[in-house]
Amino acid sequence: MTDQAQSTKDEIIDATREALVEHGYADLSMGKIADEFGRSQSLLHYHFDSKEKLIAAVLRRERKQYKGWFQSMPTDPEQRLDLLVESFVREYSDWADREPMAARYSELLAAANHSEPIQMELQALFDRIREEFVETVREGVDDGTFQDVDPEHVGHLITAANASAGQYWLLDNPEAETTIADALESFVLSKVYR
Amino acid sequence: MTDQAQSTKDEIIDATREALVEHGYADLSMGKIADEFGRSQSLLHYHFDSKEKLIAAVLRRERKQYKGWFQSMPTDPEQRLDLLVESFVREYSDWADREPMAARYSELLAAANHSEPIQMELQALFDRIREEFVETVREGVDDGTFQDVDPEHVGHLITAANASAGQYWLLDNPEAETTIADALESFVLSKVYR
Repeated sequence: MTDQAQSTKDEIIDATREALVEHGYADLSMGKIADEFGRSQSLLHYHFDSKEKLIAAVLRRERKQYKGWFQSMPTDPEQRLDLLVESFVREYSDWADREPMAARYSELLAAANHSEPIQMELQALFDRIREEFVETVREGVDDGTFQDVDPEHVGHLITAANASAGQYWLLDNPEAETTIADALESFVLSKVYR
Repeated sequence: MTDQAQSTKDEIIDATREALVEHGYADLSMGKIADEFGRSQSLLHYHFDSKEKLIAAVLRRERKQYKGWFQSMPTDPEQRLDLLVESFVREYSDWADREPMAARYSELLAAANHSEPIQMELQALFDRIREEFVETVREGVDDGTFQDVDPEHVGHLITAANASAGQYWLLDNPEAETTIADALESFVLSKVYR
């Protein structure tokens, strides 16, 4: 792809994310994305032929950005795990309160049930995040920082706590969010840290 | 309320649930509910003045039905906990595959973010289910069937595993669903059962 085509695509993805944040998934249309993009609708259609593929492209870029964030984290497994648990569980609602995509993720999850492009990209994004939990635990187990736990299991339980924190945020139940973080600490993380 | 008014309300709630299952939350309207109801739109409006209040009434009834199901379960805490974990975690996707409301719950969660009646009723439903996990563990701890664990924490972790199983189902990831059930078993339930 030429640099210019890539930069047009980037602009389109920016516009899609903006339009998604503004209108929500159910009310999003190619027309609204084109309005946000501000250039010709045919240029939009030339690059992406459906709203679902546009959303998939947004999710692909979100995944890249998570990857970049993970790469910028401390390499020490303990510090890293602390930071991951803090970000994805204990301080979930702080993140969700300031990140307009948080509510949109719940809409995309619902949409994933009947849209293959969204389902595939959302699965890839969620898998990538869970893999980060798993690999961080694995490194700590391998270098002896952590106890001899099953990294897959720990990664899945942090993911579950994150999913639950997301539900509690949507249901406006901050007390429950604190309890799930404490429960994860007492049943799971206490078996991980030495 | 007269018996007849109650039975009309029940009919309306049935129709709302049917219409929700058929059309999905985003495409649901008072008109579609009225079509499903098959009687006059003014009778519908006489009982409920918005789509959100209708959905709230559906959720209230779902909660009653869960309560009835819980009351029919074995009273032995161990058998009861087994059955709860099986239903809400290990065999989540079997339930979701045959229950058309499963996908709708994810839509209602997303809608809860901007609809107070739905948020309140969904929170009440989810709280009621979690309370069942918590109380079952508490009974088993009190009568010595279970080890001395924190029932709140266990209840929250089963809820988290259920939330995660729901996401894996939406993302068509049955392998991950098995792993979260195994992880819950190994980190949490193994500390509960004697």
